[in-house]
Amino acid sequence: MAPTMKVIQDSISVNTSDSMDIVNVAGQITTWLQEIGARNGTLTVFCRHTTAGLTINEAESGLLQDIVSRLSKLVPPGAGYQHNRVDSNAHSHIMTSLVGSSQSIPVEDGRLSLGTWQKPLLVECDGPRSRTLSLTFMGTCQDEN
Amino acid sequence: MAPTMKVIQDSISVNTSDSMDIVNVAGQITTWLQEIGARNGTLTVFCRHTTAGLTINEAESGLLQDIVSRLSKLVPPGAGYQHNRVDSNAHSHIMTSLVGSSQSIPVEDGRLSLGTWQKPLLVECDGPRSRTLSLTFMGTCQDEN
Amino acid sequence: MAPTMKVIQDSISVNTSDSMDIVNVAGQITTWLQEIGARNGTLTVFCRHTTAGLTINEAESGLLQDIVSRLSKLVPPGAGYQHNRVDSNAHSHIMTSLVGSSQSIPVEDGRLSLGTWQKPLLVECDGPRSRTLSLTFMGTCQDEN
Repeated sequence: MAPTMKVIQDSISVNTSDSMDIVNVAGQITTWLQEIGARNGTLTVFCRHTTAGLTINEAESGLLQDIVSRLSKLVPPGAGYQHNRVDSNAHSHIMTSLVGSSQSIPVEDGRLSLGTWQKPLLVECDGPRSRTLSLTFMGTCQDEN
Repeated sequence: MAPTMKVIQDSISVNTSDSMDIVNVAGQITTWLQEIGARNGTLTVFCRHTTAGLTINEAESGLLQDIVSRLSKLVPPGAGYQHNRVDSNAHSHIMTSLVGSSQSIPVEDGRLSLGTWQKPLLVECDGPRSRTLSLTFMGTCQDEN
Repeated sequence: MAPTMKVIQDSISVNTSDSMDIVNVAGQITTWLQEIGARNGTLTVFCRHTTAGLTINEAESGLLQDIVSRLSKLVPPGAGYQHNRVDSNAHSHIMTSLVGSSQSIPVEDGRLSLGTWQKPLLVECDGPRSRTLSLTFMGTCQDEN
């Protein structure tokens, strides 16, 4: 008989430290997966904001600067946006739609099944702020047969 | 004993009204989640087209114009594309790959677990048309213990 | 009684043949879904690399060239990247974050529930290489009631 699948949900907070910033959240997520006794399934990490996104990439400090710099070239602040009549952060919203709001990551034997250099990264586009990530694990757990 | 997880699938139609257009689909999705009695899990919304995508952002009218305008700057129509020898919409396809085709959204207590300003948005890049979104809810439902 | 949901995981290899290349992986994925007897749920295809991504689009050869060409305009190689002090592929990493690392695709009656022109495409940004895609099917299978 197949082990029973479960849904386990929670959220974590991540503090960012600049107007644009990229934070590696691998440690917090890994700890949570251990706490819930996850075995096999997927973890959906969902960023509950419209001016911060989530991506997966290498957490090398130069590259993180490059990503921020390139996003700022593709979507420059203050380029005559309509939204800036009600706020000043249209560029932050548009960057978020380019980066994406969530990542679904396979979990195998209780661990994120990532490649060698892959890390889940929160991409802050309108900080510094405290951001909330929703975590949804769906799959089997260690206490099941 | 953990409540039993289910898979429930359906599709909805969304009409767009311009060559580029962004439509808030939160209402249609929320109604469907209520109809199926969803409780906890994820909803995967998948856009079954190659010239329209899905994003999550604020549904402020000025921002929606800004997103359309910025996509048109990043991927201008008619910029010597190879695909335009067989069709005229290469830019619509490329924009779709930048925006993405689907969103997986956490569902908690029967509701989309979105941040205050977050709305699921269909991004039409080659309209106006009728578009189909596949909905897959995986999780627990209200009639289970 | 609802059929039991299962988690089935595996990985496949995909060879790319140029520094930038786009490979249609629909055939390999479809074969795998048949082998495991998938019925209804989602397939999460996750690219375990930081310089290759996954998108969904039409597999028309001219369009694939257009996607590569546009990514190279948006993120030109050698544009003074910090990461290039340790490696020479910052542009490959940044392109990957624009394209995205994974796709969650609905599966209905054992088949990918894609639109007429939609194909899952591996987007190589730093090849040629052998790439690994993780596959996670969550849902019901044919041997269940």
